[in-house]
Amino acid sequence: MSDAREITIYEVGPRDGLQNEPDDVATPVKRELIERLVGAGIPRIELTSFMSPKWIPKLADADELSKIAPRDPGVAYAGLIANQRGYDRFLDADLPVLALVVSVSDTHNRKNLNRGTQETLDAFRPITEQAKRDGKTLRMYASTCCGCPYEGRISTAQAMGVIEQLVAMGADEVGIADSLGVGTPDQIREVVQAAKGIFPADKLALHLHDTYGRALVNLMTGYDEGIRIFDASLGGLGGCPYAPGASGNLATEDVVDLFEGMGIPTGVDLDALIDTTLWLEQDVLKRPLPSRVFRAKAAKRGQDAG
Amino acid sequence: MSDAREITIYEVGPRDGLQNEPDDVATPVKRELIERLVGAGIPRIELTSFMSPKWIPKLADADELSKIAPRDPGVAYAGLIANQRGYDRFLDADLPVLALVVSVSDTHNRKNLNRGTQETLDAFRPITEQAKRDGKTLRMYASTCCGCPYEGRISTAQAMGVIEQLVAMGADEVGIADSLGVGTPDQIREVVQAAKGIFPADKLALHLHDTYGRALVNLMTGYDEGIRIFDASLGGLGGCPYAPGASGNLATEDVVDLFEGMGIPTGVDLDALIDTTLWLEQDVLKRPLPSRVFRAKAAKRGQDAG
Repeated sequence: MSDAREITIYEVGPRDGLQNEPDDVATPVKRELIERLVGAGIPRIELTSFMSPKWIPKLADADELSKIAPRDPGVAYAGLIANQRGYDRFLDADLPVLALVVSVSDTHNRKNLNRGTQETLDAFRPITEQAKRDGKTLRMYASTCCGCPYEGRISTAQAMGVIEQLVAMGADEVGIADSLGVGTPDQIREVVQAAKGIFPADKLALHLHDTYGRALVNLMTGYDEGIRIFDASLGGLGGCPYAPGASGNLATEDVVDLFEGMGIPTGVDLDALIDTTLWLEQDVLKRPLPSRVFRAKAAKRGQDAG
Repeated sequence: MSDAREITIYEVGPRDGLQNEPDDVATPVKRELIERLVGAGIPRIELTSFMSPKWIPKLADADELSKIAPRDPGVAYAGLIANQRGYDRFLDADLPVLALVVSVSDTHNRKNLNRGTQETLDAFRPITEQAKRDGKTLRMYASTCCGCPYEGRISTAQAMGVIEQLVAMGADEVGIADSLGVGTPDQIREVVQAAKGIFPADKLALHLHDTYGRALVNLMTGYDEGIRIFDASLGGLGGCPYAPGASGNLATEDVVDLFEGMGIPTGVDLDALIDTTLWLEQDVLKRPLPSRVFRAKAAKRGQDAG
């Protein structure tokens, strides 16, 4: 039986995290990362993106990784695309969830995708129609929903203008992204309440960044408003390359520990997740990862080990 | 006119922060820090503690610092003590607010003050009587209200047992301290609601640590329950030397930016505070301070400067 309090983690580390890492991570190592995440009980993973390797060189192995990622009936993989060429590769890769991102901020969208917000939405329309025919699940993000590094504060009305179009295209899930982490709880509440007027709360997701330390207070606000799907990145890996000063994504460990501490099931084995992040930090990336829960628990393990 | 939404920062950096720094900070530099905090609009500052220099060597200059700290009619300085000898020094130092800390966890209290919780409370009683006669304001903390590194989770009933005694001693303000940062919003809500049954909400303070990234979500929960006084430490300086794995205090910048972002007045000039933390980090401590807001804003200043 499902618990109405239960939450679902949508893990973005392999895509949103690794695309921003300075060092290359070998495809078999990425496969091991995915396998470990699946083993820790993460039910949904944004595996990679099918962008031009010129733009996102760290994810140039998207086709190969998709082929070798371990398939598990309990886990849904998503692949991010930006255009028809990406969709064709995504289709070959045989992943169930198509992820699409558009910025509410026109300037941010131009920096990110080289065209305006409306132009991007218009280009997405035929792709989403095809994806529907191909039986794909549509995960569509509206990014910079709270603020933009170029345009400043984004109004809720402006964000809803974009979300309405995503819903009209047949989104199965809409991700409300505060890509800069500038949102405050009152703003998140206003955005989520407005979005609930357009789309069911249980199909909304929150994608938060911890730039100003507010990711968890914003997440809790979203939870109180009925949101149950939360994007997170193991160890707090990653960020947004086009948002100056933006720090990492909200860490998966921080989300899991908060909810489990309140008796709200996440389905994730925190110890196994910390094993994974420790391995990623020490054996792969060789740089400290920012998750507070990971850091505190890893320090405690060190102490307990003497 | 006072705004019922307005909050008050109780700055603990000079005491709770500097006592844990590896390097000595010269007394005139501490004086400059205090002066800068006052200039940034911080209305209440825990200046120092009057403990044995054998225990807290970094604050051995408490008497001298108290003499030279700039007096401002809008700022109330507090001094922390643990016994009668400390009270005598505090009295000589002529500070208006007497701060006293006791741990709800008996084991934590023994590690911290070398005696049990009840023994500490009994020893505080005659001191608080004298302080009342001396016209001092009593700021009394109950620490480890949510959990203890030795005893695990602390029950709300156990915390209330201690808080009741602090109230009976005539506390003017009671600080609810989650010294380990283990509290979750539901637990903070339960503790605050119980405390409001004993003591007025506007005389309660929250003292939170950000070990697991939950300080701001817990702070917001306390705010929603009517708490308006929040302890914080500039830059996120400090921690608890007797709580293994505990990371820094909640950062003052993170608190100010959250509330000001919601239009809730704090009375603090965030830019002036960031100037102060930048000076402390670069010219005094020469190590990076963890506040998320400070880090993001300092990075942005660097970018804007080219």
